[in-house]
Amino acid sequence: MSESSDYCGFFEGTEKLLEVWFGNENDHYHNDCDLRKIPRSAWESILKLVKCEIISFKKNDAIDAYVLSESSMFVSKNRFILKTCGSTTLLRCIEPLLYVAKEIAGFDEVLDVYYSRKNFMRPQLQEKPHTAFEDEVEVLESYFEDGAAYCMGRVNRDCWYLFTLNPLTPAKVIEIPDQTLEVIMQNLDPKVMKIFTREACSTAKEATTKSGIDKIFPNVTIDDFLFKPCGYSMNGIMKGGYYMTIHVTPEPHCSYVSFETNFPQNSYHDVVMRLLRIFKPGKFIMTLFANENSVASESLQEYRNVKFHGYSKKELQICHLKNYDMTYGLFAKAPS
Amino acid sequence: MSESSDYCGFFEGTEKLLEVWFGNENDHYHNDCDLRKIPRSAWESILKLVKCEIISFKKNDAIDAYVLSESSMFVSKNRFILKTCGSTTLLRCIEPLLYVAKEIAGFDEVLDVYYSRKNFMRPQLQEKPHTAFEDEVEVLESYFEDGAAYCMGRVNRDCWYLFTLNPLTPAKVIEIPDQTLEVIMQNLDPKVMKIFTREACSTAKEATTKSGIDKIFPNVTIDDFLFKPCGYSMNGIMKGGYYMTIHVTPEPHCSYVSFETNFPQNSYHDVVMRLLRIFKPGKFIMTLFANENSVASESLQEYRNVKFHGYSKKELQICHLKNYDMTYGLFAKAPS
Repeated sequence: MSESSDYCGFFEGTEKLLEVWFGNENDHYHNDCDLRKIPRSAWESILKLVKCEIISFKKNDAIDAYVLSESSMFVSKNRFILKTCGSTTLLRCIEPLLYVAKEIAGFDEVLDVYYSRKNFMRPQLQEKPHTAFEDEVEVLESYFEDGAAYCMGRVNRDCWYLFTLNPLTPAKVIEIPDQTLEVIMQNLDPKVMKIFTREACSTAKEATTKSGIDKIFPNVTIDDFLFKPCGYSMNGIMKGGYYMTIHVTPEPHCSYVSFETNFPQNSYHDVVMRLLRIFKPGKFIMTLFANENSVASESLQEYRNVKFHGYSKKELQICHLKNYDMTYGLFAKAPS
Repeated sequence: MSESSDYCGFFEGTEKLLEVWFGNENDHYHNDCDLRKIPRSAWESILKLVKCEIISFKKNDAIDAYVLSESSMFVSKNRFILKTCGSTTLLRCIEPLLYVAKEIAGFDEVLDVYYSRKNFMRPQLQEKPHTAFEDEVEVLESYFEDGAAYCMGRVNRDCWYLFTLNPLTPAKVIEIPDQTLEVIMQNLDPKVMKIFTREACSTAKEATTKSGIDKIFPNVTIDDFLFKPCGYSMNGIMKGGYYMTIHVTPEPHCSYVSFETNFPQNSYHDVVMRLLRIFKPGKFIMTLFANENSVASESLQEYRNVKFHGYSKKELQICHLKNYDMTYGLFAKAPS
């Protein structure tokens, strides 16, 4: 009884995140290829397999942004991003995705793949293969050759898993400047979390403004959603194909907030400090990918000595991948 | 039949490596404490639990060095190192070790612990808990609080596991300059491996000289052993408590050579190049630990751009631990 009542109200905020870059062997600039040719009905079928659905949509000339019942999806010309939380079955999208990317969008090769997630709070509530990273890797390896699987952080506590392509002789790499910052926050301030409930705010816009999410970056087209009775998602799209996305699981015993952006910065220190002031997490992990041509590749150097006021650094790891460098950090509130 | 004949002659060269630093709460310089007070009979009992035995012994004023039937043991005033290969059960030494360190040597606290190993070639041939790193971690956690477990490299291919103490509020750290380089080589040149057989050499000394192992460092007191029909171990001890140790499993289908030293160097590039010229591995991993006071802490910076002639870098990860920095690299022979 106590266990079943404990399970009531639990929500796994921890997202599974897939990013796939496509190419065309005969058309290096793939002028005729575009993932945005894929019709909404096809996405709806694919998302049904993943056990989520589209609840809102915004676009600009570079990116299509979908708010989902469980997190978000971003579709650009040759990059696909799907982020889903709860007990969704994200990896089931791969087979149909590769199919529509070829048959409808015209892409016949995969340039790069990133599948990542933090360790689940309750892995036993996931559906297979998501109950264990090694099982997820087995599925990923059945679709993608030359996959490399990593575990950053502590295998026995907070950690972050990554599967990516890392062929022994890297043929093709993503040459355009690219960077992704993700900040995953847990043990958040209950007063802040309260904002993301229908009790405290009657609209998503109210939660966005009250929390300060609208001030993280300037000139963002925001698509936000406040769930009933609680929970919050937002996509923000910017010029140049840049995006940001935030998902909030406010329940006190399983609070979780994720922030992700590909907006380029020389240093992400100020962005992270803005997030910490807004959400006041007890702990957070930060991952940063930057390729050789990214302005953020300089900031990777800075992380060795990075300090976030009020927080202490518990873990720091740097991983060199093909043409990307990746930093993983775990930070916890310093005792006051 | 084909499987059983395949198993014949297989030897798991991959070592389990444990390093424990001891302290005394009431006697910071632990003048009266010394692990070398522990009598040989006690070590023999402990090693029996691990399923190996002492076959040779050399000492100087700073370190006792034992060649074992499966690898090596080094005992200094307050540091214990045990490295065992095959299907030995290394973790069974912990309980009696803590006991004799307290009752005989006078140490009442553990300052630091490092348990590490590469992924086994055939984990199914190990005894529990060594069949899986997570099971080893469970055992280690039962003895040591605040343990952090890491997996460097690819979870699904070549990787290297580490368990160490990483308390949230580090109380005590090892302040004397300390560094450990380990180079684990696989797929070695069969012609070189031949040296480490009784067919090619009649004495250990002959194998040591013929291979060039005697030229790796100057002024080393060497204790070497050539097994029948093949296999080789050597311990080298130097002034100041520095040691080196090499273990060779020469069988062509499971060739494995490990090198380990705590000898301080500003850069280990030349040492590693000497090893590569001697052993000609198809691939190798290199791990380097260096604490803040070590001269080797500078060399960690250099690894981002490190190059070993004839080899290409496949993986590079840097992990910041308490007052130690750790680098993991995987290198493979470049196609000629």
